[in-house]
Amino acid sequence: MSDRRDLANAIRFLTVDVVQKANSGHPGTAMGMADIAEVLWNDFLRHNPANPKWLNRDRFVQSNGHGSMLTYSLLHLSGYGLTVQDLKDHRKLHSKTPGHPEYGITAGVETTTGPLGQGFANAVGMALAERKLAQEFNREGFPVVDHFTYVFVGDGCLMEGVAQEAASLAGTLKLNKLIAVYDDNKISIDGETPGWFADDTPARFRALGWNVIADVDGHDFDAIAAAFTAARRSPDKPTMICCKTIIGYGSPNKQGKEEVHGAPLGVDEVTLTREHLGWPHEAFVVPDAIMQAWDARPRGEKAEAEWNALFAAYRAQHPALAAELERRTAGRLPEGFDTAVSAEVERILGGEPVKQPVRKASNRVLGNLLKGLPEVIGGSADVSLSTLAWTGEARSITPEDFSGNFVHYGVREFGMSAMMNGMAAHGGLIPYGACYLVFSDYSRNAVRLSALMGLKAVFLYTHDSIGVGEDGPTHQPCEQLVALRAIPTMSLWRPGSELEALVAWESAMKREGPSVIVAARQDGAVFAHKAGDLEGIRKGGYILKDAAGKPDVVLAATGSELGLVLEAAKVLEGEGRAVRVVSIPNGNLFARQDRAYQDSVLSFGTPAVFVEAASPLYWYQFLKGPGVVVGVDRFGESAPGPEIYRAMNLTAERVVSEAAQLLA
Amino acid sequence: MSDRRDLANAIRFLTVDVVQKANSGHPGTAMGMADIAEVLWNDFLRHNPANPKWLNRDRFVQSNGHGSMLTYSLLHLSGYGLTVQDLKDHRKLHSKTPGHPEYGITAGVETTTGPLGQGFANAVGMALAERKLAQEFNREGFPVVDHFTYVFVGDGCLMEGVAQEAASLAGTLKLNKLIAVYDDNKISIDGETPGWFADDTPARFRALGWNVIADVDGHDFDAIAAAFTAARRSPDKPTMICCKTIIGYGSPNKQGKEEVHGAPLGVDEVTLTREHLGWPHEAFVVPDAIMQAWDARPRGEKAEAEWNALFAAYRAQHPALAAELERRTAGRLPEGFDTAVSAEVERILGGEPVKQPVRKASNRVLGNLLKGLPEVIGGSADVSLSTLAWTGEARSITPEDFSGNFVHYGVREFGMSAMMNGMAAHGGLIPYGACYLVFSDYSRNAVRLSALMGLKAVFLYTHDSIGVGEDGPTHQPCEQLVALRAIPTMSLWRPGSELEALVAWESAMKREGPSVIVAARQDGAVFAHKAGDLEGIRKGGYILKDAAGKPDVVLAATGSELGLVLEAAKVLEGEGRAVRVVSIPNGNLFARQDRAYQDSVLSFGTPAVFVEAASPLYWYQFLKGPGVVVGVDRFGESAPGPEIYRAMNLTAERVVSEAAQLLA
Repeated sequence: MSDRRDLANAIRFLTVDVVQKANSGHPGTAMGMADIAEVLWNDFLRHNPANPKWLNRDRFVQSNGHGSMLTYSLLHLSGYGLTVQDLKDHRKLHSKTPGHPEYGITAGVETTTGPLGQGFANAVGMALAERKLAQEFNREGFPVVDHFTYVFVGDGCLMEGVAQEAASLAGTLKLNKLIAVYDDNKISIDGETPGWFADDTPARFRALGWNVIADVDGHDFDAIAAAFTAARRSPDKPTMICCKTIIGYGSPNKQGKEEVHGAPLGVDEVTLTREHLGWPHEAFVVPDAIMQAWDARPRGEKAEAEWNALFAAYRAQHPALAAELERRTAGRLPEGFDTAVSAEVERILGGEPVKQPVRKASNRVLGNLLKGLPEVIGGSADVSLSTLAWTGEARSITPEDFSGNFVHYGVREFGMSAMMNGMAAHGGLIPYGACYLVFSDYSRNAVRLSALMGLKAVFLYTHDSIGVGEDGPTHQPCEQLVALRAIPTMSLWRPGSELEALVAWESAMKREGPSVIVAARQDGAVFAHKAGDLEGIRKGGYILKDAAGKPDVVLAATGSELGLVLEAAKVLEGEGRAVRVVSIPNGNLFARQDRAYQDSVLSFGTPAVFVEAASPLYWYQFLKGPGVVVGVDRFGESAPGPEIYRAMNLTAERVVSEAAQLLA
Repeated sequence: MSDRRDLANAIRFLTVDVVQKANSGHPGTAMGMADIAEVLWNDFLRHNPANPKWLNRDRFVQSNGHGSMLTYSLLHLSGYGLTVQDLKDHRKLHSKTPGHPEYGITAGVETTTGPLGQGFANAVGMALAERKLAQEFNREGFPVVDHFTYVFVGDGCLMEGVAQEAASLAGTLKLNKLIAVYDDNKISIDGETPGWFADDTPARFRALGWNVIADVDGHDFDAIAAAFTAARRSPDKPTMICCKTIIGYGSPNKQGKEEVHGAPLGVDEVTLTREHLGWPHEAFVVPDAIMQAWDARPRGEKAEAEWNALFAAYRAQHPALAAELERRTAGRLPEGFDTAVSAEVERILGGEPVKQPVRKASNRVLGNLLKGLPEVIGGSADVSLSTLAWTGEARSITPEDFSGNFVHYGVREFGMSAMMNGMAAHGGLIPYGACYLVFSDYSRNAVRLSALMGLKAVFLYTHDSIGVGEDGPTHQPCEQLVALRAIPTMSLWRPGSELEALVAWESAMKREGPSVIVAARQDGAVFAHKAGDLEGIRKGGYILKDAAGKPDVVLAATGSELGLVLEAAKVLEGEGRAVRVVSIPNGNLFARQDRAYQDSVLSFGTPAVFVEAASPLYWYQFLKGPGVVVGVDRFGESAPGPEIYRAMNLTAERVVSEAAQLLA
């Protein structure tokens, strides 16, 4: 098998030389997994480098993303157009080969990895997406959606809790076309893992309902190939292939040690490694014969051509389905979407405003929109009914039937969120997932990665303040709103009415990037919208109720606190004050409007009181004159919600008094 | 066993009646686990209700904290002084029986639970603390630290990734005096769990190195007792007792169903349950005989008296050890601590300032302080050397030897943090734990709970900005600083010099509550401190370098950006401006100073530029006049750190230009 070893060594030396040149990076993983990757990519992976977005390609995720040179080498060798120069630019500004694989930067990278465990959970989401789309679109003789999802994981990934959450659900859902490869090299940054990671990993994954192929020698090509062959035949379980590998394989003095994990080998050791592995070629030179053996374009072109023929026949027989699949994977909303939104606007503006919690308003508009949005796949971390993520349109996905549109994720907020990212990156689906706002903490880094990748995913968080009441401070968010809004590019909605909730969902469906929709558990205020409010909501903030002339004071609020400022306004008006009430359902969006618009709403310089039952920190940026932020900067209490509002001095009287002080 | 059932039914009816009265709460868990709890508390738990802080008590944690009425009933029945009125006040403002068990509110509650999975991880930390203290303090014939840690977990806890992380480490560390009981009732909020939780839990825990006692009938008192007896004999593994239970046991129409999980049974069903279980007593009435059988005070007094005798003998033979154990468990710092700090101050002020990363400065001062702080137990989530959490004083804790002071937590940020909370709550130890700042996201809710409980724990986060460089945006924090500072009561330090790092560690050791210490990976600025700076640092913010007269402009920064404002100040001074440079290493602390002090530092109204390589949101609160915040509000890049600073326009030139604009 010397040719295979040569093919694998091409990965090793591209890696070693690039990391040496960058004088920074992680050579160990790529050197250790090169043989496995060679077998997977040359014998099994069905993809077409000429079209990285071919919808039926197998998905490949390297969850141990610090070893990114493995992925970059594979993309270079197999023909994705990643050049030697690109490799040489590893870890340089604006290169196509950043330190960790980044979705959207490099063709062929299916998801951003590096934060350990999450790539694995993304892959579970991708496998779920494949299964769902296959059930929805495949017809007798037309397996148009039919691909595997492969994911490489290291010790670090398997130690992270998020991987456990996703693995458990993958086993429960019997995602048999998910194939994970465990790079069992017994090394992590602190050294030899048995001191802190003594799991019997094969037994653990068997317990989670996985097909486990244990004790594979990760440097034995035949054994690796046999494992993949067996894995692909698993009838009803995801597969974990446990490969024993040597980190930094081939480096005579450093292999098997931590020092090869995250630093260049050093010039001398690189030379020794060349000698040891019999690789006489200069740095960055891969002989033509080896390049040719790696080139996946001819195979890929053939595979896609066959699929195109299949799809043409499918289109002939099932034209509507074919068109729908194309629409869905292109990420286009259905033609009727805007009409549906307009109908909802009319329904809401035409009806009487009712006293209801925003979570319920959100539930209604979402349910109505879902009638025309088959691509939306909802779910909840075990609180479907209290978050009201479960709409009238919801049908459960079960291990036996993926035709539904709702995933019961179990009590797994982080796993849910990372799986949602995987589904969104897969394409063809728009995921939303719900839990209580305070537990967004559990899944926060997945929300961040969603923003970093610009994925269309919706995180629905209810029970959004001290208004949660009796469950007490552990369940009452306070700092979560500012923390989520602070994520770069984020779009966070905290609607205070059904119309605002509608615009939140509309925006979430349209924007290229994730949205957070935050909804109160308790009843909101009852007020009627003007027709013009719609436009203002779409800008993130607007005048809900204006004074006749120039306002003496501006009262601004979000969500459940709108009622409070409306009440305060009434009192102040009774005292002869000209009061403007502003609603800012999406501060992120409002902050992106030009200053003139912001000024037209907030009348900068006019005394202002901002009110939100949360950490006040977010709102100071909008104070350009005398003003105060009335918020919650301590932990909550266990008591009925209205009592806590009083205990926290978050009342209309307080707002009146703060305004009066500003005007004194 | 009708008496035992009667004893258990006392829990059931206290729960049912209290939840009915509160018209809110979770009866199902307490009803389902009452029999198990009865056996544990009456036959095994070694505690003294008259002294809830007895240091050698067994620890009991209810990780499924929503079922808090189980804990409250136990505390009431066994004699902790929790009255019937306290129970009736369940979920009322300022009661001793809040919705979820809260540390510090109710005597006998060992940790705050509710956020699922974390109570379990806390218990792992407590068991680790016990093992460590036992090895440190016990002597031949004197097992003065010798207790079990019991923890109840539900399906939700076991689905959460944090439990996996802690369980894996507990198995690796062979914490055989940890005994968990799994309430396997096959119900979670969404309904019957097999649809989303199909793990073979016994096999999973065996794979994690646990002693598993499977298939215990959770309503068979003998079987439960046999399981606890066996568990306590486990020589080298933590034990998981898997009890099959019926949620809401005893409610004829609702038991075994989700509807009994989180809502009152209803008046009629309560009556039927009374009939069904043969409990003729009125609401809140527990017959004297049953109260007496539950009363743990006589047993507890005896147990503690025996231990006191043991400790007296220990003190006679090992007076220094006895005094040290008392000091440690009382949470008093050693007498020499202030002297050690002063010596460090002198060393630093007496030496030449050197160019170094703050992580290194932190490492040096920590190492020096640790020489006199045997109670400090450090650790890291697999990045001991890159965070420099590993000091010259560090010795690894291993499964065979707990005499060290450093835990290799593996790649388990959340598990680490929750275990630290458990250790801090146990007493006798002050934990610190390290990871990269961006991955504080993974563990955020544990940091929050640490603040909510007011525990003395230190979260050390390095690699604190875009300065991380080549690893790219997944590893470059941006929004994490404001997110952590926003946690109520938090004390977050971002030192920019060795002296500031020293004060951060000093403060962290002294304050009753958690601290976050954030340290840059890259080199910081080189500047000399004035003697007076010390006092200012201890206030969180101070004038680092003042203008001769009234300043034209104030430049304020933290940590690694101090160099940048010092450089900008020089340029502006060259242009004839009077410049004040302010360092705010702890904005939380600075914000708690009175306005006069803040004004004396920031000279409110004077044009100000705040600079921090992070989300600008935190700093607007301090802008009381013309000013600007120069920060980072987009994701980072993969490139050498200094290049990213330039790419993000975070430079001295930018600061000069912003100042010039303000002064124009």
